[in-house]
Amino acid sequence: MYTVKIRDHIMIAHALKNPVFGPAQNLHGATYIIDVTFYSGDIGRYNIVIDMGLAHELLKEVLEPLQYKNLDEISEFSGKLTTTEFMAKYIHDKLKEKANSRFNGKIRVTLGESHISWGSYED
Amino acid sequence: MYTVKIRDHIMIAHALKNPVFGPAQNLHGATYIIDVTFYSGDIGRYNIVIDMGLAHELLKEVLEPLQYKNLDEISEFSGKLTTTEFMAKYIHDKLKEKANSRFNGKIRVTLGESHISWGSYED
Amino acid sequence: MYTVKIRDHIMIAHALKNPVFGPAQNLHGATYIIDVTFYSGDIGRYNIVIDMGLAHELLKEVLEPLQYKNLDEISEFSGKLTTTEFMAKYIHDKLKEKANSRFNGKIRVTLGESHISWGSYED
Amino acid sequence: MYTVKIRDHIMIAHALKNPVFGPAQNLHGATYIIDVTFYSGDIGRYNIVIDMGLAHELLKEVLEPLQYKNLDEISEFSGKLTTTEFMAKYIHDKLKEKANSRFNGKIRVTLGESHISWGSYED
Amino acid sequence: MYTVKIRDHIMIAHALKNPVFGPAQNLHGATYIIDVTFYSGDIGRYNIVIDMGLAHELLKEVLEPLQYKNLDEISEFSGKLTTTEFMAKYIHDKLKEKANSRFNGKIRVTLGESHISWGSYED
Amino acid sequence: MYTVKIRDHIMIAHALKNPVFGPAQNLHGATYIIDVTFYSGDIGRYNIVIDMGLAHELLKEVLEPLQYKNLDEISEFSGKLTTTEFMAKYIHDKLKEKANSRFNGKIRVTLGESHISWGSYED
Repeated sequence: MYTVKIRDHIMIAHALKNPVFGPAQNLHGATYIIDVTFYSGDIGRYNIVIDMGLAHELLKEVLEPLQYKNLDEISEFSGKLTTTEFMAKYIHDKLKEKANSRFNGKIRVTLGESHISWGSYED
Repeated sequence: MYTVKIRDHIMIAHALKNPVFGPAQNLHGATYIIDVTFYSGDIGRYNIVIDMGLAHELLKEVLEPLQYKNLDEISEFSGKLTTTEFMAKYIHDKLKEKANSRFNGKIRVTLGESHISWGSYED
Repeated sequence: MYTVKIRDHIMIAHALKNPVFGPAQNLHGATYIIDVTFYSGDIGRYNIVIDMGLAHELLKEVLEPLQYKNLDEISEFSGKLTTTEFMAKYIHDKLKEKANSRFNGKIRVTLGESHISWGSYED
Repeated sequence: MYTVKIRDHIMIAHALKNPVFGPAQNLHGATYIIDVTFYSGDIGRYNIVIDMGLAHELLKEVLEPLQYKNLDEISEFSGKLTTTEFMAKYIHDKLKEKANSRFNGKIRVTLGESHISWGSYED
Repeated sequence: MYTVKIRDHIMIAHALKNPVFGPAQNLHGATYIIDVTFYSGDIGRYNIVIDMGLAHELLKEVLEPLQYKNLDEISEFSGKLTTTEFMAKYIHDKLKEKANSRFNGKIRVTLGESHISWGSYED
Repeated sequence: MYTVKIRDHIMIAHALKNPVFGPAQNLHGATYIIDVTFYSGDIGRYNIVIDMGLAHELLKEVLEPLQYKNLDEISEFSGKLTTTEFMAKYIHDKLKEKANSRFNGKIRVTLGESHISWGSYED
């Protein structure tokens, strides 16, 4: 099994509106350091899992609508708890869809929200 | 010259309301990884610049009113551009004041806002 | 599959009393940077694998009896080789037990003993 | 499942001679930060997956013929596209062979080529 | 004193053609992780040392002619020993010149060539 | 001003025998990640502050008597509080002395004792 992993980041605001989140119910924000891992059983004739430049571009396209935004004002997230885990899956699914014709393998998305906490999703 | 450095973090929302900030004029957010360096020419009879436990506590007290907050709703920041540089100085000054009777040396505060961007202030 | 990962650390002394460990047979010590990953197939109605605050607390409770200790003086480790791998499993098992009623999924514990060496255990 | 992970690095030159690689078709170079993970279901009577000192030595032996080299001048790589993924598998296979009599479990080799890009191979 | 620091990277080939460099006399390469720190005594009316976006752009422009190149083939470096220290100063001077009308303070350039070695230059 | 920085580590045991250190009065231990920075105003005809290989060797020689040791059993430290700050100065002074005929500039030694705490000394 081969992998390629790339890193980017976004800076967003949101509130986690349920008592279970304590002070994070307030409107606050996060820098998410986003690591995306692409998995493949083989690397084809160019010896690559996926073109690294393309991977960086696809990720940037997925992140663009979230960058410098308040997630609570994006209709897609209305009434949703935009936890790190939830956002990892959201970014995963959008990337999966966008990469579709060029990469069909497993993808893992990890969001680092600080130097001591991370969340991830993989299919 | 001796130093001690400690690390903590906060997660905040804010908007940088001036056209110079482009998309960061939107309400968005950040995780700031906060490194505080204490400087001292000597280390006294306990061989320490400052008690590390105390340093962590003082920093936590300074960060507490900012943690999980929207900076734009804190009266102290009203009409201010809460850039990384500005926040580094704000945290520096608050810490300087709080540490006052127990540490009088130079302090540097560095805020990491992502894996590729940092800002700092020192007296 | 979702995960949440958190980080903490302990500072311990020990001796690895078998000739296979060469100079590490001496009484020496380590800072272990401890990463704990919680795995879950779903994230429930709060969109979380496990409450991050709770996860940090549970880990702290497990680490507390080891923090600032000489492992060779803890009866549970008497006659045991407290390698990084062994300690990863020990912490894993204690955490599994403590988390029991609140988290039943897979847990991985990784101990970083330096910038070039790590050990881990997962069930 | 237990693991041990170690880190080392090499500094090499190469050209990726196919239009798909754009500017990387030029003769350029890379520092690869190399993480090797050894997997084992049990840790034997010494409570180790593999002797960490031995692991570091074996890796160094595998890397030595590549260290400070132009990969394009090594006959084994003649006509090959020495991508990060390809080099991860190459180092994996050489290490697997060299470790053979002393470690038979799964091995993963990850090459970090920058702070934003990685490639890996595991059997 | 305030600072802003940004990070980028380049991947280059070169040979250090003097016996003092031992095996690094061979044509080999490096990924340089490049940290640039901008210093300023004040932050003006926008509360910034330098616009972070502009800083990233200026650095990218300076790095572009080096990216994916063999330094030995760049006429400017002919007969020069392109050590990490030398390249730190080279990038520093080019950046100083390019930033000129928009930033006049002190600049430090640090090149990380691996996880255990760095070089820097500052005016 | 130019610098070169290198990294190594040691694993030691010690007890900080004064009530001011709370639980760290117990015999415990630490991995110190040791960063050494060499400063120089010029880089001579080889374009180097100091030969990086030599720097790594000198540091290893200084660290060797401390590696895998209980500092409390080393006569030089008898009755001393071997804090991070104290050890930074100790390593600094030993290195300064050993480097003497080959490097006369300023040296800074930083000891990272965890992912959230560091101490340093420079002349």
